[in-house]
Amino acid sequence: MALKVYADRMSQPSRAVLLFCKINGIDFEEIRIDILKNKQYTPEYKAINPMYKVPAIVDGRFKLFESHAILIYISCAFPGVASHWYPSDLFKRSKIHSVLDWHHSNLRRGTVGLVFNSVLGPLNGLPSKPEAAIEGEKILMKSLSKLETVWLKDGRFLVGSSQPSIADISLVCEVMQLEFLSEKDRDRILSPYKKVVQWIEDTKKATAPYFDEVHGVLFKAQKRIRERMATESGKTELKSKL
Amino acid sequence: MALKVYADRMSQPSRAVLLFCKINGIDFEEIRIDILKNKQYTPEYKAINPMYKVPAIVDGRFKLFESHAILIYISCAFPGVASHWYPSDLFKRSKIHSVLDWHHSNLRRGTVGLVFNSVLGPLNGLPSKPEAAIEGEKILMKSLSKLETVWLKDGRFLVGSSQPSIADISLVCEVMQLEFLSEKDRDRILSPYKKVVQWIEDTKKATAPYFDEVHGVLFKAQKRIRERMATESGKTELKSKL
Repeated sequence: MALKVYADRMSQPSRAVLLFCKINGIDFEEIRIDILKNKQYTPEYKAINPMYKVPAIVDGRFKLFESHAILIYISCAFPGVASHWYPSDLFKRSKIHSVLDWHHSNLRRGTVGLVFNSVLGPLNGLPSKPEAAIEGEKILMKSLSKLETVWLKDGRFLVGSSQPSIADISLVCEVMQLEFLSEKDRDRILSPYKKVVQWIEDTKKATAPYFDEVHGVLFKAQKRIRERMATESGKTELKSKL
Repeated sequence: MALKVYADRMSQPSRAVLLFCKINGIDFEEIRIDILKNKQYTPEYKAINPMYKVPAIVDGRFKLFESHAILIYISCAFPGVASHWYPSDLFKRSKIHSVLDWHHSNLRRGTVGLVFNSVLGPLNGLPSKPEAAIEGEKILMKSLSKLETVWLKDGRFLVGSSQPSIADISLVCEVMQLEFLSEKDRDRILSPYKKVVQWIEDTKKATAPYFDEVHGVLFKAQKRIRERMATESGKTELKSKL
């Protein structure tokens, strides 16, 4: 029985897991859990992930959630995964754990704080939270600066690697969430970080053509959101709202 | 040359790493980085951890930060570490990764949000942030409920284990941060979660006598803080401030 991946492509960790499966030619079934329709709260899904989050996997009798844990599991459970994604060398592997751990309270917290509170929440009927969005942007800018000066200091990919790892997949899928902002806001936020911008391009290339395929839903949603923002007076620029 | 552990015992992830080293009889040197005196911002420490956080380790020429990554590294690099701390079985190991990943944005975020914004921040001259403390308490209560009903559902220790893992060490050291609250507040928060209370006791016992040794600084600080809170009118109970 094929690996089952429960995911919503609007969610960045879901995209990371789907992308990783596709790149590595893993035989899997994608089961959409529509988070905008609260499908993560059904009793059926609770039996798979009692935390009500996506993604989750079921591999035979084994269930797992948390995207980093899933990426590591897939790297180890499927022999076809190339070793650069999750190297067996203890030092390299430890550095990948370090950047993945850092991600949770830094890049991810910043991106979610900014994008959810300024765009995705209000679009889904939740009140806009400008203070939370500002706080998110602060964490995000600090995180991008650390990406540039620490994690991308010594190589094209994270932690000084010449080839991508599961950490590149996870973190680039996170940064792609900024596509939900206006083009001007996204560029204002990203453009000071030249290495980050280049790294996003390099990771896209290294994971083509699956990168664009998995992000197709995001690009469609982005188009609708940007059109809507453009028609709502005073909402064309995020900064003016903050 | 012995492993160097840069830590401050007031920090919960520092205590987790120190405790783990002591339990496993690892030859290490503890180097105190006094975070209350901002010693994490010195150029010397920046060369070890450019994120300015504790803990970090230096093992020969290898440097590493992020406590979960460090716990995994030590489990793999030192042959004397018993296998239950970080099992080589892929399914067991993956569940440990899952609970460690969950920890970042849930239990840890809740504990830090509540304790820092209500007690530790104000005690160190920062303005009290009651709203942030309330938000932290909400995340904490939800996390404790998930600890009780999900992570401790099937065993004495996390993810259905009969023996502790690095996840138990990490999460119990986190929960110990609640000792900085008044006794009444700590009991109000923890007492509804019977399995959590029992798990804390079981982990303390499984890691004795090192648990109390590593938490000695916390207990001393707790005594001072509670005395100070008791003498400041209206501050004996956290709830009344929120």
